[in-house]
Amino acid sequence: MADGTFKVLGICGSLRKSSFNLAMLRAAQELAPDGMELTIADISKLPLFNDDLDQAGAPSEVQTLRDQIRAADAILFATPEYNYNLPGPLKNAIDWASRPPPNPALSHKPVAIMGASVGIGATIRAQLALRQCMLYLNCYDLPKPEVFVPRAAEKFDEGLRLVDQPTRDVIRQMLESLIPWAKRFQ
Amino acid sequence: MADGTFKVLGICGSLRKSSFNLAMLRAAQELAPDGMELTIADISKLPLFNDDLDQAGAPSEVQTLRDQIRAADAILFATPEYNYNLPGPLKNAIDWASRPPPNPALSHKPVAIMGASVGIGATIRAQLALRQCMLYLNCYDLPKPEVFVPRAAEKFDEGLRLVDQPTRDVIRQMLESLIPWAKRFQ
Amino acid sequence: MADGTFKVLGICGSLRKSSFNLAMLRAAQELAPDGMELTIADISKLPLFNDDLDQAGAPSEVQTLRDQIRAADAILFATPEYNYNLPGPLKNAIDWASRPPPNPALSHKPVAIMGASVGIGATIRAQLALRQCMLYLNCYDLPKPEVFVPRAAEKFDEGLRLVDQPTRDVIRQMLESLIPWAKRFQ
Amino acid sequence: MADGTFKVLGICGSLRKSSFNLAMLRAAQELAPDGMELTIADISKLPLFNDDLDQAGAPSEVQTLRDQIRAADAILFATPEYNYNLPGPLKNAIDWASRPPPNPALSHKPVAIMGASVGIGATIRAQLALRQCMLYLNCYDLPKPEVFVPRAAEKFDEGLRLVDQPTRDVIRQMLESLIPWAKRFQ
Repeated sequence: MADGTFKVLGICGSLRKSSFNLAMLRAAQELAPDGMELTIADISKLPLFNDDLDQAGAPSEVQTLRDQIRAADAILFATPEYNYNLPGPLKNAIDWASRPPPNPALSHKPVAIMGASVGIGATIRAQLALRQCMLYLNCYDLPKPEVFVPRAAEKFDEGLRLVDQPTRDVIRQMLESLIPWAKRFQ
Repeated sequence: MADGTFKVLGICGSLRKSSFNLAMLRAAQELAPDGMELTIADISKLPLFNDDLDQAGAPSEVQTLRDQIRAADAILFATPEYNYNLPGPLKNAIDWASRPPPNPALSHKPVAIMGASVGIGATIRAQLALRQCMLYLNCYDLPKPEVFVPRAAEKFDEGLRLVDQPTRDVIRQMLESLIPWAKRFQ
Repeated sequence: MADGTFKVLGICGSLRKSSFNLAMLRAAQELAPDGMELTIADISKLPLFNDDLDQAGAPSEVQTLRDQIRAADAILFATPEYNYNLPGPLKNAIDWASRPPPNPALSHKPVAIMGASVGIGATIRAQLALRQCMLYLNCYDLPKPEVFVPRAAEKFDEGLRLVDQPTRDVIRQMLESLIPWAKRFQ
Repeated sequence: MADGTFKVLGICGSLRKSSFNLAMLRAAQELAPDGMELTIADISKLPLFNDDLDQAGAPSEVQTLRDQIRAADAILFATPEYNYNLPGPLKNAIDWASRPPPNPALSHKPVAIMGASVGIGATIRAQLALRQCMLYLNCYDLPKPEVFVPRAAEKFDEGLRLVDQPTRDVIRQMLESLIPWAKRFQ
């Protein structure tokens, strides 16, 4: 927050082009309060996590992600749920970001979480799994509001713009809560 | 079990060359009872899961994994725990194997689970996460024995051979339990 | 199943008189297929679990619950979610039923699970917690169908009769699945 | 913290007289830093949670617990794990403390967690379950240090005094961390 801007790094759990969760991150960019800047990371080029590879020298995509996380004041995850857990590619990004010890990039970071599902499950289980990772990493996940978006197809228009007002409101509320939450941990 | 052989596909959660979990799968190969054949899958070449990619035609490594799973009478997972959850690369393999609907490769399969950790955590949380995935997939995870191997470095020799007898015994017991367990679901 | 009747013991997680989950168990009594008999246990008179008390001689209400469980061919849980977990009174009943070792009443039992919530959460987290208990106890929880009933107030009439046809259908389907599922474990 | 004393309410998950977790709370009383006062609640007389009962007027034991929680600057839970989850009596206390809306006693409270087990499991699963409850309640659970005490019988003497120095050290460290942690949320 050196220059007064609160920098948030958005990380999306889905790699699909038409991902509702990516669209939700884009909505968050629109909804960000004054002074917040939200950049979206690209986790699609990361190799599969392998500690041998890390020991040999972290690949450049890994280094980029780690740098982006270090530079951020907070992380905003938007993730679908696959097989009652986090998507593999998101967990893979977290695994890279959680290394190397003793000062991994993803540690002691304020974190906010949202998730959209096509069905009624609303990513409840994936968000619990993600909070469990955050506990291990000693990150500070914002407890409320929790942002659960079931039946996503009804809430975005054909251009994947978020048009459901209650969902827009809760995302806005989360982003506004994130700044004072993060300040508690400075 | 057409030819009387019970075919198990081993899947390791770690991609490290010197992985204790991979070494545990190798021990399971030694310990397999008569009539059981244990093959170890390679999940290290899979791309990151992306449904767009699957729709465009599953990459050959994905097709191979799916074929191996379909051909197996049971799956044996051996996994470390990363950040209080499954390793990203293992979750990634499960995500590929859980597609495409309505008859994914990894569905209605008997499954056994084991895990080794360097510390005392013994992969308790990762195994719970894996069972949660199995529930979604309608797989049949063997409830007991649960195989938790804490302090792995004390249980393997320098050549990564499993030398701890109680651990060898419980793996043997799990493999022996897996055959009648699988037969319940034929 | 000695006399050909398949005996199910229903256990409700809520002690409220107007509990939707109790009403759902009553609906299950109506919907039970031929040859299935569903009795509902009373867990409201149990003392708080205390192993000292058990060592001194199990109270009669505890003995009754244990006898009912032993006599049942399967258990059907219907539970709300309190504070993202099982209700205390239900967990308390499970704790009593899980004792004494080495042959507790609640062990190696086929189990089915359903849950109704007033909100949209649908008891997803409570059901995961219950399945985790079942794993410890080596019980056999039916994987599918999972019965999640969100917005319960819209699905019961004023007399607390379940009137939502899709919910009636899935409960019926679960009860029908439970018999062959239980037979796998005989 | 009106008078400068930091008041902690200890809540034990076991009702056994010789509970290791109760003994651990007693050790915490000894280890409390200057200015911290640790009182232990009695949850053994609470009735089973029933919202009908609460509507009719909370029983006096319930009122006492709620008052104790409201008066505390932080809560310290010490709990065993029963059936891979919280003990029923502890969950029961939490359910009472989580009511009535909209301002329940147990909400927005700083919380610390520890647990002792006879075996090697160390209450890992129970602690995750407890953190999940805290999330629902918008409480602030201290992320680190996590206090896991496996093989408790080796760590207490015959008078149930905690004699294991590393365990004493980590409890002390947790208590010292709790004060600045709580101050973040004032």
